[in-house]
Amino acid sequence: MTNLQVSICLLVDTFQKYASEDGKEHTLSKSEVKKLLQQELPEMLSGAKNQKDVDELIKGLDVDGDGEVDFIEFMILVASLGCAFRGLLPKKGK
Amino acid sequence: MTNLQVSICLLVDTFQKYASEDGKEHTLSKSEVKKLLQQELPEMLSGAKNQKDVDELIKGLDVDGDGEVDFIEFMILVASLGCAFRGLLPKKGK
Repeated sequence: MTNLQVSICLLVDTFQKYASEDGKEHTLSKSEVKKLLQQELPEMLSGAKNQKDVDELIKGLDVDGDGEVDFIEFMILVASLGCAFRGLLPKKGK
Repeated sequence: MTNLQVSICLLVDTFQKYASEDGKEHTLSKSEVKKLLQQELPEMLSGAKNQKDVDELIKGLDVDGDGEVDFIEFMILVASLGCAFRGLLPKKGK
């Protein structure tokens, strides 16, 4: 597999690993999101000063506000982290 | 690094590897997109019957129609492939 194929498979596996815990494998519940962040992106939560910060962060991932994070909303998080990881600004800020 | 961190680094590296060929490292030109698809997702282009199909595919990636594909537009491709790879429908179609 190419690097791009590997990365896509890892993303899908990661999403599915946490989303399927409650049996609803297409969405992450709030607790599943928190567990994903704690285990996959520990630095992200360690920067949060208190529980309110964590709740705000998780709330921000739920773009359509229905209390769950689906794969597309998860990919928005991944895209933002991708920009942050490499200091890549979307073209508008180029 | 965790699986999620590895996948994000691979995505950013892949984008940067092809985007930096023409010196403009924040965007993929049409030829850079074509090379990325040919080398990273060979099956995707092999399915295209003719050059017109390939051009349509690449045009579709350039969401804001400015002739280039930036990192966010690249991530939209990655998200769509992620859904296709695992048959994950966005929540709306759950």
